[in-house]
Amino acid sequence: MSHPTDPIFVLDSGLGGLTVVRALLDRLPYERIVYFGDTARLPYGSKTRPTITHFVKQIIGWSERHHPKHVVVACNTASALALPEVRAAFPHIHISGVIEPGARAAAGASGKNEPLIGIIATEATIRSRAYEIAIRKRRQRARLLMTATPLLVPMIEEGRRNDDPLVELALRQYLRQMTRDRIDALVLGCTHYPLLKPAIRRIVGEDVAVIDSAQQCAEDVAARLVEAGTAATMGLMMGPASEDRSRLSAFVTDDPDRLARLGADFLGFGVEAPTLVPPEVLYQQDAGSLGLPAMTVPEISA
Amino acid sequence: MSHPTDPIFVLDSGLGGLTVVRALLDRLPYERIVYFGDTARLPYGSKTRPTITHFVKQIIGWSERHHPKHVVVACNTASALALPEVRAAFPHIHISGVIEPGARAAAGASGKNEPLIGIIATEATIRSRAYEIAIRKRRQRARLLMTATPLLVPMIEEGRRNDDPLVELALRQYLRQMTRDRIDALVLGCTHYPLLKPAIRRIVGEDVAVIDSAQQCAEDVAARLVEAGTAATMGLMMGPASEDRSRLSAFVTDDPDRLARLGADFLGFGVEAPTLVPPEVLYQQDAGSLGLPAMTVPEISA
Repeated sequence: MSHPTDPIFVLDSGLGGLTVVRALLDRLPYERIVYFGDTARLPYGSKTRPTITHFVKQIIGWSERHHPKHVVVACNTASALALPEVRAAFPHIHISGVIEPGARAAAGASGKNEPLIGIIATEATIRSRAYEIAIRKRRQRARLLMTATPLLVPMIEEGRRNDDPLVELALRQYLRQMTRDRIDALVLGCTHYPLLKPAIRRIVGEDVAVIDSAQQCAEDVAARLVEAGTAATMGLMMGPASEDRSRLSAFVTDDPDRLARLGADFLGFGVEAPTLVPPEVLYQQDAGSLGLPAMTVPEISA
Repeated sequence: MSHPTDPIFVLDSGLGGLTVVRALLDRLPYERIVYFGDTARLPYGSKTRPTITHFVKQIIGWSERHHPKHVVVACNTASALALPEVRAAFPHIHISGVIEPGARAAAGASGKNEPLIGIIATEATIRSRAYEIAIRKRRQRARLLMTATPLLVPMIEEGRRNDDPLVELALRQYLRQMTRDRIDALVLGCTHYPLLKPAIRRIVGEDVAVIDSAQQCAEDVAARLVEAGTAATMGLMMGPASEDRSRLSAFVTDDPDRLARLGADFLGFGVEAPTLVPPEVLYQQDAGSLGLPAMTVPEISA
């Protein structure tokens, strides 16, 4: 049984999910958050469904030591490719993603009969058609324009922001058709992208609804906690809300210093170096849960 | 004991090492090559030494089933960070990398007393100072200008090439100081970069020696095989050289189709989909070689 004082567990391929953490800290001031960034195996956006599903299952299996009351898959690629299979594998854990909340906001963003909705995301998210399916469920007549924008994450990870000419040129290339065809709404289908919102806004103009999946996701989590009766409230915490910093514990599969260095840009406050959980811990856990010493290595000859 | 008919094993984080394969096929027409691309965990360039060293050890451990007469670490990041430790772990295997051959060529590229040598590479390669150390061993008075160029790999992987305005702008930014200070030689310190050689040449001009570590690496391997007495020759193979295609077998940890789709750009000929070796096979091998069912998972509390 989950309890309101249990933490929310947020997982991502790297640092992007920290934009979701930021939104959760704002929206839910009494919650504790455990963050897991799979920095040894990032990015997920160019990898396949079976590989990403396996990674996410390993991380959620690992999360159980924290007794999370809710798990947020704060990575669009992982939400798009792995969510149904992961939910089936952990029926006792409440798990939500970032695609459904973003799609709901996109479907409601325009009063037009046949709104034109743009979606930018990683290669894998676009290929999965997850946004398309989720939006059409709610607005059958929506027209969609989807573009994979694989350079935005490495640009942001390199520290480039809204005034960088390379960012500007990449965005102009990627958004060319969308601005020409005058989209009504634009879904930022990757948790890194809110960091480029000012540059994106400059290019698409003031009339386009720019949908930040991190914020939508936080709203969604808030509603789910209330529904499950596990939301933390001031009364339960017996005191005022703690500082953001003290409500967050973080774990990564590689390079804790990098998160400490770059995290502030996503979170708005400096974080201490997170705890390292190298990938072998996750694979050893696989072996343990199967009750096997080690699976047979298939014989492959040259 | 190695035999001349044993294959050369080439490993890389992804597809970049195929430029080394291309150079090896040209330089050594009687050799068979086994290629391994760690596509589930790529890129290596933003990750740490312990993580990359572990990945490379796993792959070389796996390579032993092919009885390679020589292993090439065809990734600058992995060569820079892992080579000494990996050689110590596999003393019975001949292992070489791409840094030493590139550094040797850079040190010899200019007749000047104090040549100015530029190096572009991934973040991790630059941070390791491996090129600096290897060049200074040979040319103590060389002056070095080093720049991390983390966007070039994702640009190439997205399919962008020499005439793309974004590639042009990124190169102009990254090479600004080098062109201003008039470098004598430029080391392409990542196996992907030779695909952008025409654009790089356009920016640095005809007078700069552009050093392609793939070609230097193939020369180095040829010399090492002769020295070890394991070079394959026409006589040994009892017939004419086979087609390039039939001399190469490939393995990847994710997305075999991607290599089949993008490989031709690196190799100059189409490849069949390689065989999938998912990462869990490598971790199971760790467990097996330790003779343990599974190491103890450290207890970490929230």
